[in-house]
Amino acid sequence: MEKIRPRTLSGFMELLPGPQMRMERMMQILRSSFSLYGFAPIDTPIIESAEILLAKGGGETEKQIYRFQKGDSDLALRFDHTVPLAKYVALHENELSFPFRRYAIGKVYRGERAQRGRFREFYQADIDIIGDGKLSIINEAEIPSIIYRVFSQFGLKRFCISVNNRKILNGFYALLGLTEQSGDIMRTVDKLDKIGPEKVRTILVDDLGLSPENADEILKFIAIRGTNSEVIAALEGYRGKNEVFDLGLDELIAVCKYLADFGVPEENFAVDLTIARGLDYYTGTVYETRMLDHPEIGAICAGGRYDNLAEYYSSRSLPGVGVAIGLTRLFYVLEEQGMLNPELPTAPADCLILPMSEDLGPAISLATYLRSRGIRTQLYAEQKKFKAKIQYADKLRIPYVIFLGEDEIAGNTCTLKKLATSEQLSLSREDAATTILDGTAYSGTVIIEK
Amino acid sequence: MEKIRPRTLSGFMELLPGPQMRMERMMQILRSSFSLYGFAPIDTPIIESAEILLAKGGGETEKQIYRFQKGDSDLALRFDHTVPLAKYVALHENELSFPFRRYAIGKVYRGERAQRGRFREFYQADIDIIGDGKLSIINEAEIPSIIYRVFSQFGLKRFCISVNNRKILNGFYALLGLTEQSGDIMRTVDKLDKIGPEKVRTILVDDLGLSPENADEILKFIAIRGTNSEVIAALEGYRGKNEVFDLGLDELIAVCKYLADFGVPEENFAVDLTIARGLDYYTGTVYETRMLDHPEIGAICAGGRYDNLAEYYSSRSLPGVGVAIGLTRLFYVLEEQGMLNPELPTAPADCLILPMSEDLGPAISLATYLRSRGIRTQLYAEQKKFKAKIQYADKLRIPYVIFLGEDEIAGNTCTLKKLATSEQLSLSREDAATTILDGTAYSGTVIIEK
Repeated sequence: MEKIRPRTLSGFMELLPGPQMRMERMMQILRSSFSLYGFAPIDTPIIESAEILLAKGGGETEKQIYRFQKGDSDLALRFDHTVPLAKYVALHENELSFPFRRYAIGKVYRGERAQRGRFREFYQADIDIIGDGKLSIINEAEIPSIIYRVFSQFGLKRFCISVNNRKILNGFYALLGLTEQSGDIMRTVDKLDKIGPEKVRTILVDDLGLSPENADEILKFIAIRGTNSEVIAALEGYRGKNEVFDLGLDELIAVCKYLADFGVPEENFAVDLTIARGLDYYTGTVYETRMLDHPEIGAICAGGRYDNLAEYYSSRSLPGVGVAIGLTRLFYVLEEQGMLNPELPTAPADCLILPMSEDLGPAISLATYLRSRGIRTQLYAEQKKFKAKIQYADKLRIPYVIFLGEDEIAGNTCTLKKLATSEQLSLSREDAATTILDGTAYSGTVIIEK
Repeated sequence: MEKIRPRTLSGFMELLPGPQMRMERMMQILRSSFSLYGFAPIDTPIIESAEILLAKGGGETEKQIYRFQKGDSDLALRFDHTVPLAKYVALHENELSFPFRRYAIGKVYRGERAQRGRFREFYQADIDIIGDGKLSIINEAEIPSIIYRVFSQFGLKRFCISVNNRKILNGFYALLGLTEQSGDIMRTVDKLDKIGPEKVRTILVDDLGLSPENADEILKFIAIRGTNSEVIAALEGYRGKNEVFDLGLDELIAVCKYLADFGVPEENFAVDLTIARGLDYYTGTVYETRMLDHPEIGAICAGGRYDNLAEYYSSRSLPGVGVAIGLTRLFYVLEEQGMLNPELPTAPADCLILPMSEDLGPAISLATYLRSRGIRTQLYAEQKKFKAKIQYADKLRIPYVIFLGEDEIAGNTCTLKKLATSEQLSLSREDAATTILDGTAYSGTVIIEK
């Protein structure tokens, strides 16, 4: 028969079992962390009506979206979790309780240009808190504190959550009489990291038509640096001139205080007046998280506060705050950087039983017992040479092998071998289980920093 | 602004938070059970090249598949986990260790006619064991023993795993000189449950051209009933006439013995000569699992042994055995039948903290402490009436509320209220945590049978 060459599409991540185990561990940390903060898992379809997904429309989204006809239906694949969340909340607004906390960990699709490290199918992990009409400022501090917890659990230490507030920026631009241009200005300032202040000034003056004085004021403003209290002290110098600015400053001060209350160390969060997030719908606090030793990677997590989650589907006021982690890209980058912990156990089993008797009944009974003790167990009954069997365990990094022959069965024991040390013991099944449980307890993290 | 009516496509399951929690619990049971048996999670893309997915081609698959162009690429959404597994194993055959045990829990897509209880996007949960050239018969017993464990963990008791062997059927048809028609005969016999023996006989004689004697022999054969040992004893009467039949009978006897060794009670598995599974690629043991009190639901899980997983992509012989659970449909049916346990906790949190002080710092500190003890905690700082706050907890079925006012903060205590009993206690935070942990320990199952 003619064979079809097996292949996986470019831009689609497909992992071997070892790396997949590391990815699963990261997802497990996300799920358990989000749960601890009272978020409910919500699973929306990957396919939606194109009309729903493109309600906002425009820009990159329309170009990148996977869209197709099936029968009479104009369908598309979700490109983020925010639009499906907006639809979900609008559809079920009378059945949900607010503030509504949900998390979503799932695949989203963007037909980006194929390029190393860019994915067309990738996991995003989102958390959002949606209020009904109002939402307490404390949520704007709790969200980054969860991000802090998650990255710490992953094993990352050298990261910084940058915090800013769009009201401060909008108020400041209003002060300069630049309210109408504020969107364009923020998008320009957002590029500061990439293009530098000179080029930002040129765009502000030449392209956006700002006066040189105003451009200089802006550059001076976004150049404010220092510890969080130094930055806030500098911002206090602008207080009393614009209501929106003052409100934003109050919010920023509250978020910084609560972030500290949530136990986030000062070295892991910083007020940064240059971040604005490109998206128009953020209205208050905004965040970006970066790895300190890998600025080239850009934001590994971003989000903020918005006023109207579901404005395209509902007239109800649904303000919220949320953040998204680009999980597939993060995983890819960590692997590239050699930051995935090679010591993390990735074996599919803790123990491999090699039956050495004709009747497999006693081996089956032992496997059932070990599993009842929570030990991940494989039975290996294939007709192979002894060496091949041990190589199987070795290659999969299964730490323990149990031999069960007629002698062991007669004596109600088993022979337990620890592959790392070649140590071999004759034990009761109870003691073998205890030994394996002790020997496989592991508290390492997915990520190690060098 | 003109609003777009929010909606979810027909045939796509989207759950409210409560039911979603029950679904998550089922998935968690699947993951942990599969892991205990040494299966590695593998996550293949949802989108593949259409050429890959349709390598086998033909029939319902081609009609139902979601297929579309993106740029120059002819793409399709996976319609099961078996074809992506075949591609995966063929692609990575030199990097995998055999027997390769993998599980997959993920969405698959079939554009079926929209109909109540039929889904176009649905979860399948698959396990497979793939051998390299050979695969021990014990795996054919271990697979249904895992199914037994999973359904038992769900809380189902009244179910039966039907077991048969295609070699027995093929051998028997060969005995009658009907080897060439055996595929057609099996597909006909497979309908016995739905159309009855009379109609089966009519199809065998009129449509397939069998002699009335042969048709009667077949009906007599598939009418063999009784306990597993009675059925096997009846089959022994045919032994010695056909090698394939004898081999199949030996395999069936081994599978039944090992199933008992794995601890599967006789009432949960039965040799059933009428099941054959429609798919051509099964070559040995086949399974179907049904709910005894709901035969109308059909098979909730099915699978079997096959000789060549990846014949379209690789010339390597890769025999395997596997089974798939139609998770979305199972969940839907359980809900329809009122079999989902309403007592199963579905709250997103174990505890809701209501801060009663100006400064939220102490409430944040308490939340952080409770989370460190593994208690899923929400902070509720919205400006609402007291009654609305309690209703929020009630509606979400959050079992505990903690009030934290100035008095409590000064006295280093908190007021813990159990909503179910309205019992209210003043406790240290350590004692509050212990009380919550004790009060939320729960050992009920997802499914309850009436």
